[in-house]
Amino acid sequence: MAILSREQLQHLHQYWQATNYLAAAQIYLQDNPLLKTPLRPEHIKPRLLGHWGTSPGLNFIYMHLNRLIRDTDASILYICGPGHGAPAFLANTYLEGTYTETYPSVTRDEEGMRLFFRQFSSPGGIPSHVSPHTPGSIHEGGELGYALVHGFGAVFDNPDLVAACVVGDGEAETGPLAGSWQSIKFLNPARDGAVLPILHLNGYKIAGPTVMGRMTDAALNSLFHGYGYDVFFVSGDDPMVMHPAMADTLDKAYVQIRNIQAIARNAAVKTPAPRWPLIILRTPKGWTGPEEWNGKPVEGSFRSHQVPLMDVKKDPAQLALLEQWLRSYQPEKLFDGNGRLRPALAALPPKGNKRMGANPHANGGGLYQPLQLPDFREYAIPVEAPGVTTAESTVQLGKYLRDVFTLNEAQQNFRLFCPDETHSNRLQAVFEATSRCFMEPILGTDDHLSPDGRVMEVLSEHLCQGWLEGYLLTGRHGLFPCYEAFITIIDSMFNQHAKWLKTIRELPWRHPLASLNYLLTSHSWRQDHNGYSHQGPGFIDTVVNKKSSVVRIYLPPDANCLLSVMDHCLRSRNYVNLVVAGKQPELQWLDVEAAAAHCEQGASVWQWACNDDGRAPDVVLGCAGDVPTQEAVAAAWLLRKHLPELKVRLVNVVDLMSLSPKEYHPHGLERELFSALFTDDAPVIFAFHGYVRIIHDLVHGRPEPERFHVRGFMEEGTTTTPFDMVVLNNISRYQLALEAIRRVERMQEQATPAIQYFRAQLEKHPAYIREHLEDMPEVKNWKWE
Amino acid sequence: MAILSREQLQHLHQYWQATNYLAAAQIYLQDNPLLKTPLRPEHIKPRLLGHWGTSPGLNFIYMHLNRLIRDTDASILYICGPGHGAPAFLANTYLEGTYTETYPSVTRDEEGMRLFFRQFSSPGGIPSHVSPHTPGSIHEGGELGYALVHGFGAVFDNPDLVAACVVGDGEAETGPLAGSWQSIKFLNPARDGAVLPILHLNGYKIAGPTVMGRMTDAALNSLFHGYGYDVFFVSGDDPMVMHPAMADTLDKAYVQIRNIQAIARNAAVKTPAPRWPLIILRTPKGWTGPEEWNGKPVEGSFRSHQVPLMDVKKDPAQLALLEQWLRSYQPEKLFDGNGRLRPALAALPPKGNKRMGANPHANGGGLYQPLQLPDFREYAIPVEAPGVTTAESTVQLGKYLRDVFTLNEAQQNFRLFCPDETHSNRLQAVFEATSRCFMEPILGTDDHLSPDGRVMEVLSEHLCQGWLEGYLLTGRHGLFPCYEAFITIIDSMFNQHAKWLKTIRELPWRHPLASLNYLLTSHSWRQDHNGYSHQGPGFIDTVVNKKSSVVRIYLPPDANCLLSVMDHCLRSRNYVNLVVAGKQPELQWLDVEAAAAHCEQGASVWQWACNDDGRAPDVVLGCAGDVPTQEAVAAAWLLRKHLPELKVRLVNVVDLMSLSPKEYHPHGLERELFSALFTDDAPVIFAFHGYVRIIHDLVHGRPEPERFHVRGFMEEGTTTTPFDMVVLNNISRYQLALEAIRRVERMQEQATPAIQYFRAQLEKHPAYIREHLEDMPEVKNWKWE
Repeated sequence: MAILSREQLQHLHQYWQATNYLAAAQIYLQDNPLLKTPLRPEHIKPRLLGHWGTSPGLNFIYMHLNRLIRDTDASILYICGPGHGAPAFLANTYLEGTYTETYPSVTRDEEGMRLFFRQFSSPGGIPSHVSPHTPGSIHEGGELGYALVHGFGAVFDNPDLVAACVVGDGEAETGPLAGSWQSIKFLNPARDGAVLPILHLNGYKIAGPTVMGRMTDAALNSLFHGYGYDVFFVSGDDPMVMHPAMADTLDKAYVQIRNIQAIARNAAVKTPAPRWPLIILRTPKGWTGPEEWNGKPVEGSFRSHQVPLMDVKKDPAQLALLEQWLRSYQPEKLFDGNGRLRPALAALPPKGNKRMGANPHANGGGLYQPLQLPDFREYAIPVEAPGVTTAESTVQLGKYLRDVFTLNEAQQNFRLFCPDETHSNRLQAVFEATSRCFMEPILGTDDHLSPDGRVMEVLSEHLCQGWLEGYLLTGRHGLFPCYEAFITIIDSMFNQHAKWLKTIRELPWRHPLASLNYLLTSHSWRQDHNGYSHQGPGFIDTVVNKKSSVVRIYLPPDANCLLSVMDHCLRSRNYVNLVVAGKQPELQWLDVEAAAAHCEQGASVWQWACNDDGRAPDVVLGCAGDVPTQEAVAAAWLLRKHLPELKVRLVNVVDLMSLSPKEYHPHGLERELFSALFTDDAPVIFAFHGYVRIIHDLVHGRPEPERFHVRGFMEEGTTTTPFDMVVLNNISRYQLALEAIRRVERMQEQATPAIQYFRAQLEKHPAYIREHLEDMPEVKNWKWE
Repeated sequence: MAILSREQLQHLHQYWQATNYLAAAQIYLQDNPLLKTPLRPEHIKPRLLGHWGTSPGLNFIYMHLNRLIRDTDASILYICGPGHGAPAFLANTYLEGTYTETYPSVTRDEEGMRLFFRQFSSPGGIPSHVSPHTPGSIHEGGELGYALVHGFGAVFDNPDLVAACVVGDGEAETGPLAGSWQSIKFLNPARDGAVLPILHLNGYKIAGPTVMGRMTDAALNSLFHGYGYDVFFVSGDDPMVMHPAMADTLDKAYVQIRNIQAIARNAAVKTPAPRWPLIILRTPKGWTGPEEWNGKPVEGSFRSHQVPLMDVKKDPAQLALLEQWLRSYQPEKLFDGNGRLRPALAALPPKGNKRMGANPHANGGGLYQPLQLPDFREYAIPVEAPGVTTAESTVQLGKYLRDVFTLNEAQQNFRLFCPDETHSNRLQAVFEATSRCFMEPILGTDDHLSPDGRVMEVLSEHLCQGWLEGYLLTGRHGLFPCYEAFITIIDSMFNQHAKWLKTIRELPWRHPLASLNYLLTSHSWRQDHNGYSHQGPGFIDTVVNKKSSVVRIYLPPDANCLLSVMDHCLRSRNYVNLVVAGKQPELQWLDVEAAAAHCEQGASVWQWACNDDGRAPDVVLGCAGDVPTQEAVAAAWLLRKHLPELKVRLVNVVDLMSLSPKEYHPHGLERELFSALFTDDAPVIFAFHGYVRIIHDLVHGRPEPERFHVRGFMEEGTTTTPFDMVVLNNISRYQLALEAIRRVERMQEQATPAIQYFRAQLEKHPAYIREHLEDMPEVKNWKWE
């Protein structure tokens, strides 16, 4: 147990005062950083930005974790849920030296301190949230809810790591955070590290009270005991009582974590799910700040959430109160005249990589090891001719992924994250190599369930996404297979991760990470019985809006293309790779070498589906996505059969961004190649998996983009047959062929009688189609099921 | 207390058997509905779809709620979280008669029963989830997580209503559901109804175990006691024990609810937050179904999740087991020879609107009362000339909303739902009329907090959205103001609500609802200190993809336009209205009459910003969104000033869908009007609030759409000045003016010397802009702050 001597207590308190001073000063000061002279209006920043309220508590936690690390040599990752508390995180990294090591211009002296204050939340400076710019953070603090789930992701397969996750009582109200407490049911103490949640209750959000802040200790204890935690309370506002209490509590929690791990790692038999420690810290919002202003409470109220005194530059009374506040920390006793932390305090933080600002897991790309990948060609479907073999693409991928697990067994750096759909998505071959992970009792009625499983199944897209992010950010690899419609549940989490990836590309000290890979299957076109609620390809739209340096979108039309694409994605770094591929039995088009070449180019003419002999076609049928590809190929076949004089070309697009001009996306096809595929002037009927607007936008800047007539999912159809789905959304082979004919007719003076006849037949559809399907055996062959 | 007689028990059990029979038969049978003859393969559907596992439990709950209603005359809404359990919900509505009243062709006789089975999850039939098609449901069961939050929204301001919310143990793992338990902290028993959560633990999801299903009763009790509930357990698999236990428990829970309400409604003083009842029902998955097949357990395991016996059509052994299973319910004792439920059973359900399939709140449009709205003109900012006055648009709207609260005080049918941002979004005038709602203790440090408050603030976009949906679906009105970037947290919930609205338009018996209104403020262009994590206009992209019959998008450029738009939205029905408007001080353009006319037309030429005298302009500057509008107006001004010979036109778009051809969206401008605004051939530089691709798509089909050069948010900028934000995203006045000149140059043989000179100046930007801003007083005036 940590028995603090009087001197230790004094030093700890002074160190905390130093961090509080730096946090407040970042918000207010542009000059006079050490308050060597009386505070004057010109020392105050022109615009006051930042959040004071949560900062003293975050400082308190950071500093006490420092003490714990010094005493135990633990590897601790600090995850700062209240991201608005960047002043605190930054103050600590500045004091421990990691900030200056990361940004050498911000030196540890008076001038550096001045710069440190000025850059905070200023144009050209650093954000007011914990962000990729913050050394030691894997967590962006803008959108709340993911601190805990990031922590769990970080410690999976990192047995020595402890993620200390500070959860604010505002954040605790979010759904994703509320769902995250159950993550301990998936944390195996024998192989994983530990998460130490520190629920920081300061009682207020921006303007209102917090729900948990108003709960009694008894209610909180009951709640978290129910979740499976052992709850430790540290409450109060007297630092001289709070320091020993926090030190003692951290020691107890740490010992409990290591005991749990020791038992799990040494036990001959599986132990039941342990009861992990959780600390609830109650301190006043804006602790140590101004007690009141204008007769209204500031400390302990929502009024200290952001900038407690807004008019210090103009109002001498406020300026005086600010000066009194800042001087209350006695900066002259904390720093020497040159702004160096006094030696007794400078000795307190841990050293080297044990400093939380330098924890290697927080810059996980530095720990990155490439995956050992099997040759995807070995899992290929033999395709002797296009459109003959039928296969389930994801079944093949499952076999490949199974062997990814096996090959990386020793590295322990690959997991699958999926909302209880691995089997439904037909990736079940992975269960030959691993199991679903679960820490609660396992029954005889269970299937492939084990504490050692590497398939993380929980019915929460938020947890899947958040765990995976934490896993990737600490240098490992993963894949998130998901029902297509429900991936939009994590739209905003994807947004934030894509922003993180964009930003770290601009920070040379941040090492590249494994890409975040999505496999969207059980897609919109084959929700035969789930229907309308399960139909939604909108995630493509969300992804396509992000920076072109970060996002990649693939629509492999068959199993071999899916294998080639996934192999590529698992090797890539710093991207978000979105792969959309169905799980149902479907026709196969390309043998594996053709598939690899096709995927590498991004888009190709499928010669066997064309009759233009490489010369100027009358019409081009474009397609992206497995179901649209099937319809487009069938449309080309109908046209070739019934109107052989019409020159038809078919272009399949697997890499969606290849459509984009190269100046907008690096995967954009070169101008010449684009024209070689789509010509410069022929009408293009484009059958697309998702909403049509993306294609309209991507071809903007290509020759005569108005000739692209796009068909896609238009929110039609529900519980029905696959064929009815394509008819209802105007994307069936017949509708595509009809549109092709119409476009050709417009280009020609006089339609030939053959065109007129076939067009008349097609225009009777879909009623005609339904009536006469039985009369057209050659068409029937194309029909599913 | 419900003491069931032996006869009552027998009848209840038989009724339950009838619902179980109907649930199973919906999945399997296309003929022989009463099993009058031995079951043969041709009686089996060609494709077996549906979910058996959860159905018996849902039937059990529904039937016992029926008994409670009969005994108490309560108004109970059945919210079915396990939406895959549609066979159960449908079976009950069929037996109670509401299904046939809604769909008269599905009669309550043998032939009707046959049709009832055949339509289930068949093409042209009804979905396999609880959906808008289900009488008595306000809840689509496709995407899980929202049962409880819908229940709370439904009972707000419905003091007599009880929402019985069945939460599956799969759904309970989702973040939104986990966050929803805290909703009782916002439920006022004096004015609101009650939610009775029934957590149904059957232990398995699709393929894996559930987290809560494996928790001990003690852990669950501790957890929910901590949340503030009184937990009642009903566990077992012997129906003869379970029926009395459930009846007794429902009675106790109901009495407790009414006691809480009576105390709250009669007390002279405020009572503390009550402890609401919650029922945990543990029954086997697939209860009463086949115990095992092929040596593996079915009942009580994940193997009964969907269709327990898949090959009944081909495998005689499976067919025999199915027949044995179906006959175990003894249909001949439940139905007469014509398929009518026997009288003793038919007497059991409640009558009329007390039947849960006919609860009026479940078809809330029937209870809809229009809002009393003040004249928005009374809140207008006086605008004597464009671009002179500065105002915060949302401050004005706040005053209008304040009076909406006041005018509808008696109706109690309007609430604001907002994640702790009402004040931050500058709508604080509403607190003159109402408060934030909160049921936990209120302290002296709190501001505008009361159990009677009508502003629902919780730091969870999921709860805000879900409560509002429940409130709207039961016939009331609301508004969701949100930070723009964080509304994407509920992308998927919006998707599902938009799908609901599309579907009810196709169901004549569903009454229209008040629109779901979003106000996105604190938007991407003015995140001066929050920076990159708070910048994201992508929700527009999500909304625009939905059915044009449902979605409306408005970008009012100033306060008076915002008032006009919001007045329109609050009067509308069956839409999702997305309104995007900043909260920062910004220039005002239109007086209130001009604003009203502008908003009604959707897009207009702003003559005072043009110098084309209504004749063919050389270039058109288009704009949508407040910040882009400011930049476009300034660009027009720069061009007019420096190149007076250039004919410039400015078109502002407030109704985004007006850009779309009318065949794609009903708000699309008539072809003539579009051409009158944008011409047929002039280059258009379009400054847009969001991502550019939407504009490219919307103008597809308009004359020469390639002439639209769009600038918008391109994921650039972080903590910086508003002006730097527009420069970084290439949308500043200078960049717009420069692009306009480049486009004009392309159209002209030889650029004039004036054009060449001004272009050269502009091309030095943004460096030039930053250096010379001080030298250009006329420009400086345009600069914010």
